[in-house]
Amino acid sequence: MINETYPSKLLEQAVQELSRLPGVGRKTALRFALFLLNRPTDEVHALSQSLTALRDDVKHCRVCHNIADTDVCDICGNPRRDPAVICVVENIHSVMLIENTGQFHGLYHVLGGVISPIDGIGPGNLELDSLFQRVEEGGIQEIILALNPTMEGDTTNFYIARRLAHTGVKISVLARGVNVGDNLEYTDEVTLGRSIMARTTLTA
Amino acid sequence: MINETYPSKLLEQAVQELSRLPGVGRKTALRFALFLLNRPTDEVHALSQSLTALRDDVKHCRVCHNIADTDVCDICGNPRRDPAVICVVENIHSVMLIENTGQFHGLYHVLGGVISPIDGIGPGNLELDSLFQRVEEGGIQEIILALNPTMEGDTTNFYIARRLAHTGVKISVLARGVNVGDNLEYTDEVTLGRSIMARTTLTA
Repeated sequence: MINETYPSKLLEQAVQELSRLPGVGRKTALRFALFLLNRPTDEVHALSQSLTALRDDVKHCRVCHNIADTDVCDICGNPRRDPAVICVVENIHSVMLIENTGQFHGLYHVLGGVISPIDGIGPGNLELDSLFQRVEEGGIQEIILALNPTMEGDTTNFYIARRLAHTGVKISVLARGVNVGDNLEYTDEVTLGRSIMARTTLTA
Repeated sequence: MINETYPSKLLEQAVQELSRLPGVGRKTALRFALFLLNRPTDEVHALSQSLTALRDDVKHCRVCHNIADTDVCDICGNPRRDPAVICVVENIHSVMLIENTGQFHGLYHVLGGVISPIDGIGPGNLELDSLFQRVEEGGIQEIILALNPTMEGDTTNFYIARRLAHTGVKISVLARGVNVGDNLEYTDEVTLGRSIMARTTLTA
């Protein structure tokens, strides 16, 4: 639809705003808007209010910077979690993904991004100082770096490892290897190469 | 993600509301919510307000029932459109699609649906009486039925044609045939059969 003509400015505005969402083009935005036009008023108000409330009222945990409804998030405030292990992640989504595995019982630290000079993001733009401070305060035995396996993730891993080298805290990264259930035929060379080098022993 | 754990109730609520949108599952809704969390407050407010305004303030044209910002829509109020030809459509989206072809210069009538006994939608639930009234008022030469080529669309076409039979107004339906640019190999039998029966003459 090149020469779009909207029967209403309000519709056009709603389409305009909805099409900012990731992966939503003007066609999908129009579909959303026409769908909402046919829904009960209460439901549309509930959607609008939930978005405004999310943006305005959500808090960030003052310890790990994960989002929370309270000053300290449920994970940091849980006495059954192991405070000696901190998993460093890029964003909130990573926290949710790792929590869903059910395999991690320590605490988190959300950086809010990774070092990326090309995007103008340096160490100062991330929650790195607060991480180093948590380590300085003591009681931490291991830092797990769970950033995305990209160049920027690796740079950030290297930066953190160097800054924490003097503390003697153990620093680990996520295992890199072939995906569970994947086919070697479709695994890229770098991953396959690394998975051979980092092979694990089955028999003693 | 079966055992979803949200770090914040506000996030969970936003995901819940966003996942009502057509074609949006919980994963996409979460992606939308996390995206909005990182956007400027103003932008999120603009989105919320545009949705509320769309639902609360949009009007329906009192002549054709298309949506509009005024009592009578831009199409009905345009003196250069031909008031003798009315194109009957199912919804607002159809009006936009037909307008975008640039091939129709008459007026519209938006039914707000089609007759569908299985969904409990009878003639009384649609803007049919107002259509018949427009015809009774005179000055109309042709009614083009542009409903979706489904069983319900055909039922509605048949109902309208029967109710208007006594008026002598010409009633037409959209041509059915093979799609422009399509391959006969992929055209279904019913469409191909109809396109043979409704063939058009190239030479006199």
